[in-house]
Amino acid sequence: MKIHPMWDEYPALRNELEATISLIEEHIRIKNIEVQNKIKEMLFSGGKLLRPAYTILFSQFSSKQNVEKSRALAAAVEVLHMATLIHDDVIDESNIRRGQATMNAAYNNRIAVYTGDYLFTVCFRLLQDYVNEAGEVPLDTKGMETILIGELNQMSKKYAVKMRMRDYLSQVKGKTAQLFALSCYSGAYSRDEKFAKQAYQIGNNIGMAFQITDDILDYSYDAKKIGKPPMQDLRNGIYTAPLLYAMETKKKEIEPYLLKKESITDEELLQVLKIVEESGGIEKARELAAKYTNKALKQIKNLPDVDAKISISRITEQMLQRNF
Amino acid sequence: MKIHPMWDEYPALRNELEATISLIEEHIRIKNIEVQNKIKEMLFSGGKLLRPAYTILFSQFSSKQNVEKSRALAAAVEVLHMATLIHDDVIDESNIRRGQATMNAAYNNRIAVYTGDYLFTVCFRLLQDYVNEAGEVPLDTKGMETILIGELNQMSKKYAVKMRMRDYLSQVKGKTAQLFALSCYSGAYSRDEKFAKQAYQIGNNIGMAFQITDDILDYSYDAKKIGKPPMQDLRNGIYTAPLLYAMETKKKEIEPYLLKKESITDEELLQVLKIVEESGGIEKARELAAKYTNKALKQIKNLPDVDAKISISRITEQMLQRNF
Repeated sequence: MKIHPMWDEYPALRNELEATISLIEEHIRIKNIEVQNKIKEMLFSGGKLLRPAYTILFSQFSSKQNVEKSRALAAAVEVLHMATLIHDDVIDESNIRRGQATMNAAYNNRIAVYTGDYLFTVCFRLLQDYVNEAGEVPLDTKGMETILIGELNQMSKKYAVKMRMRDYLSQVKGKTAQLFALSCYSGAYSRDEKFAKQAYQIGNNIGMAFQITDDILDYSYDAKKIGKPPMQDLRNGIYTAPLLYAMETKKKEIEPYLLKKESITDEELLQVLKIVEESGGIEKARELAAKYTNKALKQIKNLPDVDAKISISRITEQMLQRNF
Repeated sequence: MKIHPMWDEYPALRNELEATISLIEEHIRIKNIEVQNKIKEMLFSGGKLLRPAYTILFSQFSSKQNVEKSRALAAAVEVLHMATLIHDDVIDESNIRRGQATMNAAYNNRIAVYTGDYLFTVCFRLLQDYVNEAGEVPLDTKGMETILIGELNQMSKKYAVKMRMRDYLSQVKGKTAQLFALSCYSGAYSRDEKFAKQAYQIGNNIGMAFQITDDILDYSYDAKKIGKPPMQDLRNGIYTAPLLYAMETKKKEIEPYLLKKESITDEELLQVLKIVEESGGIEKARELAAKYTNKALKQIKNLPDVDAKISISRITEQMLQRNF
């Protein structure tokens, strides 16, 4: 099994993540071998598994930790993430993810939409079979609804020239941060609810920092290194922190480029990049990500002293500095 | 509240269906008013509510019937149906359903995909809050998975010239019939599991007859009466019973038309219709639908004698003769 090399220095966690992936694999039961294999390809494609990792680590703060249950929660979180990725690829008409053809590209929208729907039910089944029967509900439909409602409340449109930092932050909070928050919360719940709420806040801050950092990468000349061409977000009408900060002072210069929408040329994209850089937009975005990271690290420092605390702290630092 | 007039002669059931719709309405909690209203528009658009009606009627065979629970099951079934319709419209790029703009047409694919996903979680929440906590699981994730797996196993492609009756029947069984079967099964479960399995078979036969009848309508010159232009399925590369029966004897004549795919003209569509009629394809399809209907009616006759039995029998007859 191919697990991202970042986990090599955490052998126990790495084993647990492998067991989580195996649990997911057991729960995928589609007769159509091609679709089944495509889901497994995605499962084994070396994704970072950050969300289930946080679930597992936060579950280790409880003396009454139930390994099987935590693993099912971690699996549910990852399957939910996979379902949203597959649906996002349909919506964005993306052809490539993690170096492999997306479900919609490899087959068609029908297969992709239904595969995402199917994974939703797998997520619910994992919760139903392993978790909720114990009477506790550390992760339930309400948490998932929040993610989907977040997405709907945004009405996030592409090429939304009127979008501002406030809208961006509320979008990031609604989706990426919410799923990180739930991942931490659900793992932490086996200790007690108060602790779970602390974990939720930490996850939220980690998620905010994670998404902002991810968005900054698109404004980096080195973007190609991370597997996607630079300025793809802007090209696709997705406006993120560096641009939105730049818009606060250079609106008049940038807006004409945005109004070109799909027809913007590569050269024009580089001109926007130059304006964003000169306006300090990238630096401001980095400072914002650092603010959330520091908030998370400070909160983690206040957690009870167990081994998992050190791992959480290190992983969060490494992840947000994109050291892996 | 606008309930389809077909229920006017069943006032008690009509009231219960209204209560079901209200229960669904209470569970839709999206801040974005436009999306919220669009979901409610769909909810109140006068759909036939056949699936929840069967759930309610089959729940009335039990002496220990719990009205609140049956209503939640009926609501879950209808919400699941709505979610799949919204996703189907995205996949098929449909603009109109029940005379109203589809979610993807009124907004965009992003909103439509996430609204469908959101409704899936609403369905699970209804089951979680009202049903499964009683320890019984008359409708669970496995039933839903079956529907979605059915869809995936088909790999149903448009313009599949090699498609035959066998493939068609397995498609209909996997989706339409399965949801009808689950609707009956989940209502019947409060009596006992054996009875629920009988109800499942009945629902399966009703669903088969329902879909075949629906597909025949597309080959009727009167198709316009039911709100869609004739030969739409064929135009969209969806091959159903009348055509597939015709293909069994007139393959050589029909195939060249099918190979034209999207570029088929209105005149050519009418030529195909003529071949299908002459080959007896429509009659054979009608006989097939009648076979499933009679099977269902015979099974209904063997059910225990309660008032609901008469309603189930009459509704099934009326529905399948498209008397409403």
